[in-house]
Amino acid sequence: MINISAGIDIGGTNTSIGLVDTTGQILIKENIATPTHGNIKIYIDKIHSTINDLLIKCQLSVDNLLGIGIGAPNANYYTGCIEEAPNLSFKGIVPLVELLKEKFPTKETIILTNDANAAAMGEMIFGGAKGMQNFVMVTLGTGVGSGLIVNGQLVYGHDGFAGECGHTVLVPNGRMCGCGINGHLETYCSATGIKRTAFELLAYYNAFESILANYSYSELSSKIIYEAATDNDFIALKVFEKTGQWLGKSLADTVHHLSPEAIILFGGPMAAGDLIIKPTKESMEQFLLPVFKNKVEIFCSKLPAGDAATLGASALVINELNT
Amino acid sequence: MINISAGIDIGGTNTSIGLVDTTGQILIKENIATPTHGNIKIYIDKIHSTINDLLIKCQLSVDNLLGIGIGAPNANYYTGCIEEAPNLSFKGIVPLVELLKEKFPTKETIILTNDANAAAMGEMIFGGAKGMQNFVMVTLGTGVGSGLIVNGQLVYGHDGFAGECGHTVLVPNGRMCGCGINGHLETYCSATGIKRTAFELLAYYNAFESILANYSYSELSSKIIYEAATDNDFIALKVFEKTGQWLGKSLADTVHHLSPEAIILFGGPMAAGDLIIKPTKESMEQFLLPVFKNKVEIFCSKLPAGDAATLGASALVINELNT
Repeated sequence: MINISAGIDIGGTNTSIGLVDTTGQILIKENIATPTHGNIKIYIDKIHSTINDLLIKCQLSVDNLLGIGIGAPNANYYTGCIEEAPNLSFKGIVPLVELLKEKFPTKETIILTNDANAAAMGEMIFGGAKGMQNFVMVTLGTGVGSGLIVNGQLVYGHDGFAGECGHTVLVPNGRMCGCGINGHLETYCSATGIKRTAFELLAYYNAFESILANYSYSELSSKIIYEAATDNDFIALKVFEKTGQWLGKSLADTVHHLSPEAIILFGGPMAAGDLIIKPTKESMEQFLLPVFKNKVEIFCSKLPAGDAATLGASALVINELNT
Repeated sequence: MINISAGIDIGGTNTSIGLVDTTGQILIKENIATPTHGNIKIYIDKIHSTINDLLIKCQLSVDNLLGIGIGAPNANYYTGCIEEAPNLSFKGIVPLVELLKEKFPTKETIILTNDANAAAMGEMIFGGAKGMQNFVMVTLGTGVGSGLIVNGQLVYGHDGFAGECGHTVLVPNGRMCGCGINGHLETYCSATGIKRTAFELLAYYNAFESILANYSYSELSSKIIYEAATDNDFIALKVFEKTGQWLGKSLADTVHHLSPEAIILFGGPMAAGDLIIKPTKESMEQFLLPVFKNKVEIFCSKLPAGDAATLGASALVINELNT
């Protein structure tokens, strides 16, 4: 019998649902809308029917399903709830795992965690961290997320919310963070942080000659900055250099906590490849204690960007059954 | 039959060896000199004979010995070696566990780790962290050490050296650290850091009226500063306030990594009690994300200061046998 797991990635706009075999092949995948006017019951019905449809399309049944893994913002592994997610229309505490268990009463293994943790698990089970017992996943998106693996296990902390490395202080009294505190890593090294850096540098250099000088703050994106960098735009190149310097400095602090074997970076800005990875490595090494120097690998996620969330969510199931 | 473990704490000057029962009672304890002209063979012989003497004095034999736990600077749990310890006369890599196994061939459980990790384990098995699965131990001494417990296990990282929170950057371009990098937590919040703060504040306030103005840099100690603080010396009070503010800020970053249930502080400066704990808590709370606020306890080690190292080392044995 073919064993598969369902991987669900809940985003602000779309929910992706895929069926994944135990080797990490996605058999089938479909997107449904994440409701904008949160009726959770209808949404759960839709997830339920979509999984059943996908199973039928693959000539499989619920018997083939090992379990369901879900990556979502503000998700709590311990409680199985999404808690006060600012970017979802479901307010308060949503007992997602409980609601799905009602739909799949024969399935013991229904697991919820936040997106960065799911990404870390995907990397450990199917990606570049296979066989690693201690590594750190950092996701650079609208914010900076992180998933920490220690002794082969995700670090959830006592309440399920560990891994908020994006909200460690990088520059005391620095840029205002969405959380209200100044100078967090995420204000410098998220996709948004990269844009902020571009604007600061345009102002600093009074850089009329940069292609980036033609964009408004609303228009500019890290993708535009990356494209400018590949055209050797001075400001754009400088943006990635500075981003890497900041990121590396912050990663050194994380290494001093956890001494991971590797740090894996994921997200849109990683399209810039060595433009960001090289200064990140150099900066991290500069701030490491001798005992950690030249030991910690830094590389981009080895999972295809479009499939990483699905693979990560389904990896939660594989991991749970393996332990 | 009474089961006991031997706890060995290796310091720069003294090595303390104690026999501890499974409830954390120290039956007997003795200090021997840590050699200053490192003949490791003689030292191991001395440890061996001391353990045997202590067993005899308690009318016990090697059969009663569950195992041996050792806390030491620059100790690597994975390899059982002390590696390049700057404050010990044994240079290079010393295979301490292997050498002790030759002396105690019937004992499987001989465990070496660094002092802060041993302190964390002591707290988990015998002290204030009983029953906790996720907490952080911070030791404030000549430096700042830390032992991290995640999912009930010590965090060693991939190479055995995790937990160097004392060497995370607190003040970019701040005070020079012994490791050569600027602004590390340890330069502000170790016992030495506290003295440095006193000197900065004396200079800042031009504070003739402080009792601390009568001490040279060589003479001043965190103990003198604490005594001045209990006499309401303005500078001394300010020193602990600032130390707590710095420590709390740094601890917030650690909480954002690991979301521990508690942070336990240990070391000479903790004699100041609420003078340092209160500003530490306030500062940490100020820098925490809402999801972590008012959840993380901060308190002093619950183990008697003089026995903590022995208990910590012996707790390594209990923990290993329990898992």
